[in-house]
Amino acid sequence: MSSQNITAALLVIGDEILSGRTKDKNIGYIADYLTAMGIDMMEVRVVSDIEDDIVAAVNALRGRYTYVFTTGGIGPTHDDITADSVATAFGVSIDLDPRAIDMLRRRFSDAELTEARLRMARIPAGAELIENPVSDAPGFHIGNVFVMAGVPAIMQAMLDNIAPTLQTGARVISETIEMPGIPEGDYGMGLAKIAKEHINVSIGSYPHLSPEGYRNQVVVRGKEETAVREAVKAVHDLIKQLQAKGFGDKTNATRA
Amino acid sequence: MSSQNITAALLVIGDEILSGRTKDKNIGYIADYLTAMGIDMMEVRVVSDIEDDIVAAVNALRGRYTYVFTTGGIGPTHDDITADSVATAFGVSIDLDPRAIDMLRRRFSDAELTEARLRMARIPAGAELIENPVSDAPGFHIGNVFVMAGVPAIMQAMLDNIAPTLQTGARVISETIEMPGIPEGDYGMGLAKIAKEHINVSIGSYPHLSPEGYRNQVVVRGKEETAVREAVKAVHDLIKQLQAKGFGDKTNATRA
Repeated sequence: MSSQNITAALLVIGDEILSGRTKDKNIGYIADYLTAMGIDMMEVRVVSDIEDDIVAAVNALRGRYTYVFTTGGIGPTHDDITADSVATAFGVSIDLDPRAIDMLRRRFSDAELTEARLRMARIPAGAELIENPVSDAPGFHIGNVFVMAGVPAIMQAMLDNIAPTLQTGARVISETIEMPGIPEGDYGMGLAKIAKEHINVSIGSYPHLSPEGYRNQVVVRGKEETAVREAVKAVHDLIKQLQAKGFGDKTNATRA
Repeated sequence: MSSQNITAALLVIGDEILSGRTKDKNIGYIADYLTAMGIDMMEVRVVSDIEDDIVAAVNALRGRYTYVFTTGGIGPTHDDITADSVATAFGVSIDLDPRAIDMLRRRFSDAELTEARLRMARIPAGAELIENPVSDAPGFHIGNVFVMAGVPAIMQAMLDNIAPTLQTGARVISETIEMPGIPEGDYGMGLAKIAKEHINVSIGSYPHLSPEGYRNQVVVRGKEETAVREAVKAVHDLIKQLQAKGFGDKTNATRA
């Protein structure tokens, strides 16, 4: 990869994901979204609602990647500790932010602005707010860290607001090649040779197990169109060679 | 938490999850599975097919938790580098393992045991094999690290084989309380007080946004039945107090 690559990590915060109570829907969404923008998601972590763990993860990730996105833990209840943890990670103070209170006032009367709801206006010093058209309580970004809600509809709206502000890299071109009934074990070494000869692309092999047996796909990914096209051609040539030797279709039912 | 807690981390290995190409189905399954056994999953990481990243994650996690489970990267193709990375993490050699070759022979003739398929018999020195009834290629465990396939059906079969060998802790008792139309912002401080007064349980508040508005649930989790029961009663008392003040049902439509 060149030094032009824009990278990201996602930090999912919440006991409920780790206990299995809530099934995460944000990882796949954000992965697709960033990939489409030319941002390479390099790592995901899921941590529980423990301040030390959140602080350690934020600091490990923000030093390593262009951007860090977090989801979860910015609501009005006592278990929402993401804002405080991010402030600790950056070594800044945290307090009620008048801009955030103004956003909450769009929805809540003074009487409704309870101590709990005001927790959603606690923002680390120096952070910029992220608008939330779904429920008004803002996210924020500080340094290279973007703090978003965990509720998917709200996270998605926040991400739409963040996206225009992000640096983007060259988009990855991805080509998927169906391996027609040929098991991985029969094309593996040929594919390894192709991977070694085409160092400007990454080549993956993905078996999918269905009731009918394996269905294998090879995916060639890269940022240079010519390099991707040459590697894809090499894979098609490999398929032809293997078919000429009698591999394919019926050999794949129960084989890796 | 007491020193009796059995903890775990999950390391998901694969570019395809981070690019969004494949949507992970293993995190939620393993979370449910371990929770039901009384093992606390404390952290998940997803890393790409880069040996240094896998090694660093394995070493960070195995020192911190009772068990580490990995998924992905143990097939026959060049991008399957989990076994080699785990060997590096433990500082042991890796070579063809006769026991693993015997397992592969159940499915493959000598002619079919290609160099690619034999990659699936490369096992770090000192590891024990994990049987794979679905496709015969084994997983393995070394130290406190359990290496499993990424294909969900195979991972699940391996986990069933691993489970009887694991130490288990006290199971977490979890009680879910529907908050009848009361927004988080109205019960947040009352719930925080309950959380502070019931330190042997963890209390979470989880909003779910649907077309009808928010539906909030409070979850009380703990390993001592009496402590859970007392905290649940306190939440029900809080609901009654709020309802007596007129909160509930209609207030919740668009409020956090």
